[in-house]
Amino acid sequence: MNLDFTHNALASSWVTSANAPACDFPIQNLPLAMFRRTGSNEAFRAGMAIGDRVIDLAMLSQAPELEASLRAALIACAAPTLNGFLALGSAAWTGLRHGMFRLLARDANPRARQIVEAALVPMGAVEYTVPVRIGDYTDFYTSLDHARNVGRLIREGDPVTDNFRWIPIAYHGRVSSIGVSGQQVYRPHGQSMKNGSPAPTYGPCEKLDYELELGLYVGRATPRGSTLSVDEAEGHLFGVCLLNDWSARDIQWWEMAPLGPFLAKNFATTISPWIVTLDALAPYRRHWTRADNDPQPLPYLESTANREQGALDVRLEVHLHSAAQRNAGRPSARLSGTTFSHQYWSVAQMLAHHTSGGCPMNVGDLIGTGTISGPGEGEAGALIELSRSGKTPVDIGNGEVRSFVEDGDIVILRGWCERDGFARIGFGECRGEVVAMPA
Amino acid sequence: MNLDFTHNALASSWVTSANAPACDFPIQNLPLAMFRRTGSNEAFRAGMAIGDRVIDLAMLSQAPELEASLRAALIACAAPTLNGFLALGSAAWTGLRHGMFRLLARDANPRARQIVEAALVPMGAVEYTVPVRIGDYTDFYTSLDHARNVGRLIREGDPVTDNFRWIPIAYHGRVSSIGVSGQQVYRPHGQSMKNGSPAPTYGPCEKLDYELELGLYVGRATPRGSTLSVDEAEGHLFGVCLLNDWSARDIQWWEMAPLGPFLAKNFATTISPWIVTLDALAPYRRHWTRADNDPQPLPYLESTANREQGALDVRLEVHLHSAAQRNAGRPSARLSGTTFSHQYWSVAQMLAHHTSGGCPMNVGDLIGTGTISGPGEGEAGALIELSRSGKTPVDIGNGEVRSFVEDGDIVILRGWCERDGFARIGFGECRGEVVAMPA
Repeated sequence: MNLDFTHNALASSWVTSANAPACDFPIQNLPLAMFRRTGSNEAFRAGMAIGDRVIDLAMLSQAPELEASLRAALIACAAPTLNGFLALGSAAWTGLRHGMFRLLARDANPRARQIVEAALVPMGAVEYTVPVRIGDYTDFYTSLDHARNVGRLIREGDPVTDNFRWIPIAYHGRVSSIGVSGQQVYRPHGQSMKNGSPAPTYGPCEKLDYELELGLYVGRATPRGSTLSVDEAEGHLFGVCLLNDWSARDIQWWEMAPLGPFLAKNFATTISPWIVTLDALAPYRRHWTRADNDPQPLPYLESTANREQGALDVRLEVHLHSAAQRNAGRPSARLSGTTFSHQYWSVAQMLAHHTSGGCPMNVGDLIGTGTISGPGEGEAGALIELSRSGKTPVDIGNGEVRSFVEDGDIVILRGWCERDGFARIGFGECRGEVVAMPA
Repeated sequence: MNLDFTHNALASSWVTSANAPACDFPIQNLPLAMFRRTGSNEAFRAGMAIGDRVIDLAMLSQAPELEASLRAALIACAAPTLNGFLALGSAAWTGLRHGMFRLLARDANPRARQIVEAALVPMGAVEYTVPVRIGDYTDFYTSLDHARNVGRLIREGDPVTDNFRWIPIAYHGRVSSIGVSGQQVYRPHGQSMKNGSPAPTYGPCEKLDYELELGLYVGRATPRGSTLSVDEAEGHLFGVCLLNDWSARDIQWWEMAPLGPFLAKNFATTISPWIVTLDALAPYRRHWTRADNDPQPLPYLESTANREQGALDVRLEVHLHSAAQRNAGRPSARLSGTTFSHQYWSVAQMLAHHTSGGCPMNVGDLIGTGTISGPGEGEAGALIELSRSGKTPVDIGNGEVRSFVEDGDIVILRGWCERDGFARIGFGECRGEVVAMPA
C-alpha cells in the first residue's frame, strides 16, 4: 500500500470538504500553523489544515492508540512554537505527513477516523499566530523583473546592478515586526526628501507599498563557519508561506544609501499562517534555467539537481480591497498575478549563498524570497511597479485608482499550485489592513 | 546616608582589588555578565564584577537575610539570560545597584560581607556567554569621521552620502553569529570582484577588517506602532558593551549595492561580556553639540536634555596581537585610540530614530553604534581607514605590517571612562582571534 499521496491526485479524505476541486487544503497538502479558538485564552498549538477544518495536533497527541513515532511528532506539535517539531528533522516531517495520510484517507479505519474527528475545529473559528520562534529574518532580492522594473524608476543607465546576475542579493530584516495574516499595518512616519527640497521632512509615509514574496522556513541548523552546497541546502528547508514585505518607498529612497533599507521595511512584515511543506510541493518542481546570455552560476551556486527541479511553480496573486469597496459590498480588485518559477535564483541557491560565508542558520529562521514579479504586464509584485511610481495609477474599479496603498486598504496575497493530474496545493491567504499610526 | 556611590570617587569596597586606581571594576561600576566556572557544565547565571572577582548573583539570591526587593532582583539574575531582570524595569536596575553598594561598601556590616564573600569567584576562573537573548540586532553608522574616511576610499566626490547629516543611518544585523569575547572568528569565504576582472571569484576573504563599536542593550519594550522621543529613549537603554563588527571588505564592496552589507558582516560579531549600566556612566555624560554649518536635527531627533548630556566620553582603544608577537612573548600593538564623545548622533537619538516609524523594540535587543572613529590621525576604528585600504600598511613592530587582519591575529578592543574626581569605569576587553574557515 502506497502511503505517500503526494503524487496521487485520486487520493481523497473522509473530511469531504478536502475533496472539493478548488480547495486549498486537500489530503495531499497538510500544511501546519499555530492556532487557537478565536478570542479564547487558549494556548496556541500546532494545527494541520484539511479541507475547511483544522486538526488540533496537541489534542491528537493525547490519543493512546497512535503509533509511537507519530505520537512523538505530535507531542512536539503541542508546544507553543513549531521549533521543537522542526528540530526533529526531515524524517519526522515526512513521518508526520505519512502518518496523517493514513488517519485522514477515505478508507481510514473507523477508530482512526473517530480519534481525528474529535480533534477537528472549523477553520472559520480559529485565529493564528506566527508559527515559529524566528531567530533571524533575511530578505532576498532575486526577481530580475522586479529589479529591472524598480531600477528603471530610480537609477539611470542599466537598471540592474552589476552583482545581481552573480549573487542572490539579500539583506537582514526585522523579526520583531513580523505578524500573521490579519495584521493591522500602521502607516509608518519617517524622513523623506522631496524633489528639489533643501531639507528632508518627517511625517506619515506618502508612498506605502506591498511586496509579494514567499517565505521559507529553515528546518535544520548549521553551525558558525559551516557552509551548505546547493544540494545540501535543499534538505534544510522545511516549508513555504506567503509573505508581504511592506515597504515605505519615500522613506526607503532617502535612507537606503549606503547601507540599505531600514525603517522603510521594519515597521511590519505579514506572513500567511499556513506553512506548506516542501514535501507537498514536490509535483510542482520545474527545471531551473539560466539564459545563455546571462552569466552561469559560480560553482558554489551550481547543482545538477537544482537545474532539473530547482524552480517552484507557485501561482501568486495580489488583491486590494479598499474601504469603499468593502462598504459598498463590492469584491476586491485583482492587481496582478504571476508564478514563482520565473525567479532568477532558486530557494536552494538562496540558502546555499546565505551559508557561503559561514553564517550560522538556526531552526526557525525565516527567509523572504524578495518581491516576485514576472516578465509580463500585470505580473509585477509591488504597486510601485504597476503604477510606475504613480505615473500610471492602477484602476481598481468604480472610479478608484491607486498609485500607492491608502489607509483602509486591505492587501491580500494568494498562492496555489495546480497542474493536470495532480492535486491543487494551496497556501491560503496573507492579508493586512493599512491604518494610520496611533497618535 | 547616601546610598548612591556613582559620583563618589572616595567610596571603596572591602574587596580590596576593586580599590586599585587602574581597576576597571570599582564599586562605582558594578557591570553584569552571564558566567560560569571555566570548563564546567554549570548553568550560566548572572555575575557582577567587583575588582578581580565575580559575584555569583544566583548564589547570592539564596541568602535568606536579604531584603525582599533586592532578593527579587537577584532571583531574576539567576535565570540563564538577563532578559527577565531587564524586564523588571529601571527601578529594579537602580535598586540592584544601590543594594549592592550597601553589601560591598568598605563599611558594610560583617554579616553582609560574609554573605557576599561566599558568592565570590575569581575572575580568572570564569567563562562568559552572550548575556541576553537578543531578539534583533541593529547596527548604526553614526561616526562622521568613519563615514568620511571610508567614503574617500570608495566613492568619488563628496565622501559622505547626503542623508548622513539628517539620519542616524542603520541597517539590520545578524543575531545568530553574535559571540562573546574570546570568540574564534572564521575568515569568511565569499564572492568578490577584482578590479578589471570580467567575473567575480569565490574564495577566502582577502580584506578582513574589524570595526570598533559600542553595543547598547534595550531594557524596555515598545509595541509596534509606537514611537519614543529622544528623552523617552534615554530611559529605555540599560547598558553598554564593546562590540566588534567584523567586516569582509572585498565581499562588502561587491555585494552591498543596492541593499547593503550582508555576508560581509554576518559571519561574526563579537561583544564584551560585561554590560556597563547607564547609571554607572552618569559622570561621563557630555554636551552633545552639532556644528553650526551642519544641519540641526529635525524636531523628532531634538532634545534639550540630549544637548546638555547626550554625549558619552568613553575612551576606546584597538590592539592587535599577532601570532608572531605571541610566539615571541611580545606585547600587542596599539592600533588606535579615540573617544565615543565625537559621535555625530547620540545613543538616545539612535533609539528614538529606530522607533520613529513604529518598529517595535524588545527587551534584550542589541544596538551597535557603528564604527567609532575620531577626527585625528590614529583615531580610526577600522583597519581599512588606518591603512587607507592597504595603501599605507600599519607598522605593528618587529617588521610586521598590516593592511588587513591576518589569520592568527587577535584583535582586542578596550574601553574605559576616566575623569579627575570620579572613579574609573572600565568595560574590560572584547577580543577575537581570526582563524581560517574549517575545511
